[in-house]
Amino acid sequence: MNNFDFCNPTRVVFGKGTIANLTALLPPNTKILMTYGGGSIKKNGVYTQVQKVLKGFDVVEFGGIEPNPRYETLMRAVEIVKKEKVGFLLSVGGGSTLDGTKFIAAASCWTKTEDPWDILLGKFQIEEALPLGDVITLPATGSEMNGGAVISRNSTGQKLAFISPMVFPKFSIIDPEVTYSLSPRQTANGIVDTFVHVCEQYMTYDVNSPLQDRMAQAVLKTVIEEAPKVLKDPCNYDVRANLFWCATVGLNGWIAPGVVQDWATHMIGHELTAEYGLDHGQTLAIVMPNVWHRFVDKKADKLFQYAREVWGITTHDRDDAIQAAIQKTVGFFRSLGVKTSLAEYNIDAKEAAEKVRQRFFAIGMEAGEYGKVNGDVAAEIVANC
Amino acid sequence: MNNFDFCNPTRVVFGKGTIANLTALLPPNTKILMTYGGGSIKKNGVYTQVQKVLKGFDVVEFGGIEPNPRYETLMRAVEIVKKEKVGFLLSVGGGSTLDGTKFIAAASCWTKTEDPWDILLGKFQIEEALPLGDVITLPATGSEMNGGAVISRNSTGQKLAFISPMVFPKFSIIDPEVTYSLSPRQTANGIVDTFVHVCEQYMTYDVNSPLQDRMAQAVLKTVIEEAPKVLKDPCNYDVRANLFWCATVGLNGWIAPGVVQDWATHMIGHELTAEYGLDHGQTLAIVMPNVWHRFVDKKADKLFQYAREVWGITTHDRDDAIQAAIQKTVGFFRSLGVKTSLAEYNIDAKEAAEKVRQRFFAIGMEAGEYGKVNGDVAAEIVANC
Repeated sequence: MNNFDFCNPTRVVFGKGTIANLTALLPPNTKILMTYGGGSIKKNGVYTQVQKVLKGFDVVEFGGIEPNPRYETLMRAVEIVKKEKVGFLLSVGGGSTLDGTKFIAAASCWTKTEDPWDILLGKFQIEEALPLGDVITLPATGSEMNGGAVISRNSTGQKLAFISPMVFPKFSIIDPEVTYSLSPRQTANGIVDTFVHVCEQYMTYDVNSPLQDRMAQAVLKTVIEEAPKVLKDPCNYDVRANLFWCATVGLNGWIAPGVVQDWATHMIGHELTAEYGLDHGQTLAIVMPNVWHRFVDKKADKLFQYAREVWGITTHDRDDAIQAAIQKTVGFFRSLGVKTSLAEYNIDAKEAAEKVRQRFFAIGMEAGEYGKVNGDVAAEIVANC
Repeated sequence: MNNFDFCNPTRVVFGKGTIANLTALLPPNTKILMTYGGGSIKKNGVYTQVQKVLKGFDVVEFGGIEPNPRYETLMRAVEIVKKEKVGFLLSVGGGSTLDGTKFIAAASCWTKTEDPWDILLGKFQIEEALPLGDVITLPATGSEMNGGAVISRNSTGQKLAFISPMVFPKFSIIDPEVTYSLSPRQTANGIVDTFVHVCEQYMTYDVNSPLQDRMAQAVLKTVIEEAPKVLKDPCNYDVRANLFWCATVGLNGWIAPGVVQDWATHMIGHELTAEYGLDHGQTLAIVMPNVWHRFVDKKADKLFQYAREVWGITTHDRDDAIQAAIQKTVGFFRSLGVKTSLAEYNIDAKEAAEKVRQRFFAIGMEAGEYGKVNGDVAAEIVANC
């Protein structure tokens, strides 16, 4: 395996009734900014639960962080942080609210340049950020246990990611019960996101890392096993708990040490979301199988291993096994009710390919495990989507 | 799965040549106590590598920490820490040196009672400890990425464990190359220790935790696969790297969240080491199969799963599969050259059973996932060892 440097200091408090633990986790005598999204927490009871626990704390609220959280919205929160002398951020919601809160944390302390958007452009490292914690309500992004965030900017139509050890949550509260009220679409998108996160860290080339490979397969197999159960029985605690823990482990770094990563699917997916407004999970389900087809030779060892270990495909013909595994993957996404082609969303693949090509070249994107997925290659992939 | 509260803030710097990273990891302007064991680091080149990197740092040395590190030895280090105003501890060696260093870290700040041995007796929680880091040279204990330590006391013949978040290493440097020079016995003991650590967290009863189960199986399968390779080819980097990462993941908490743990094998093993001086790994290989035989009914679901998933045993007869899996486990330990009965060490099992009975009752030990392994049950188990 390759050399690596790993650290993940986030504390995870997981299980039934754990929102009550907030009192002990929040810093005393500190002004807290509680961030949230479009108001679903007010419908599903989470807001009330959190309010009860926050009694006695000095809290300012900032709601309205949208899915694909926007720079423009978040900068209004940064103003509040500065004006109100906020010392801690508490995100209550899904991955978008949490990603947005990570940006608020970093942007509130940013002094390197005039515009904190430069964080997304990677102009300088983040050296300081406000501490933050969260009550995470959607199993999908893994943001609850990593230092990454994806932010969109309305004025430029960009959707970009940043990663910094400064924005690891101090704590994340995961109560799987709060996911009972998710819509089938949200649940399905979260499952696809988890699945693809794992594949981005697994489906590359062999570096002799059997433990990491098996751990990645462990997440994939568990997701495949639990997914049909949650569609039938959305209020089954064990199923919801297992899927949430899969989402967290899928992107908390545990399967990543010493292995090569891809992320071309995500980079292409982000551009499709920015251009057409598709859900993140929807774009991933369309793009990943086509990234695999495009790089079927380079990924063959891992795809064959995946066919055998994850899908139990026993044919000894390597090519057949690989094609069957890709078919199984597409079938799995479709079984969740997630479409797997642009045409199904009435998007012309050729037109989309050209748009993605331009967007990739505009930011100089070179994605994938070999850094070879530039605008031209991305366009080839999207043309087949 | 059960509710859990997880945090592991240790930074792991893993790979070839990583000892050179020490310079960037150690705190500046702080007096450092470098601890080590019986001098093997002076033979295998690690001492020289570390010395080179420590130039410019203010370092005091404390060598001679023994396998099964002793309170009496460690308290001499505590005196040096206080006299020399040491601010950081650097452990260079195996799990015993590191465990001992964790005790030094906690004992140097202990003010709750007069005798820091009370840490081992669990009289009060540790609220403060000196920060510590390590260069870990033996894959076995997992101490490099957890907050646990096992300490022996000469004067009382006790061997006891403590766990505290205060003694997580700030960093651990793992360079698998330093393990090339381990003896076959050290290598084999480390493999057994890793294997049994995983089983202590896995072989209990089902709480619907498929991801944790699969991750535990991932470590076991990888250890089984890599072990014969290391015996044949002890200087194979990839094999050494995979075994070291298995040892770390085997006891860094990643397979433990939300599941039930056992640890009866370790508790009995500690007493056999304290009484007869057997290596830790040697005791585990003898005891664990007999703990499984004793609780074969209560552990049947997991043993059957283990038979299928880890050993690929396909018989549908549950009892047959379980017995075959236990046999496979014994055979695996023996294939490493590790004996699996007390008689092979010329120890009378009945006498040993009586001694363990007395030792368990003396400290009020009630081990195992049901807390039912008291002195009588432990004696029953040891009598069959």
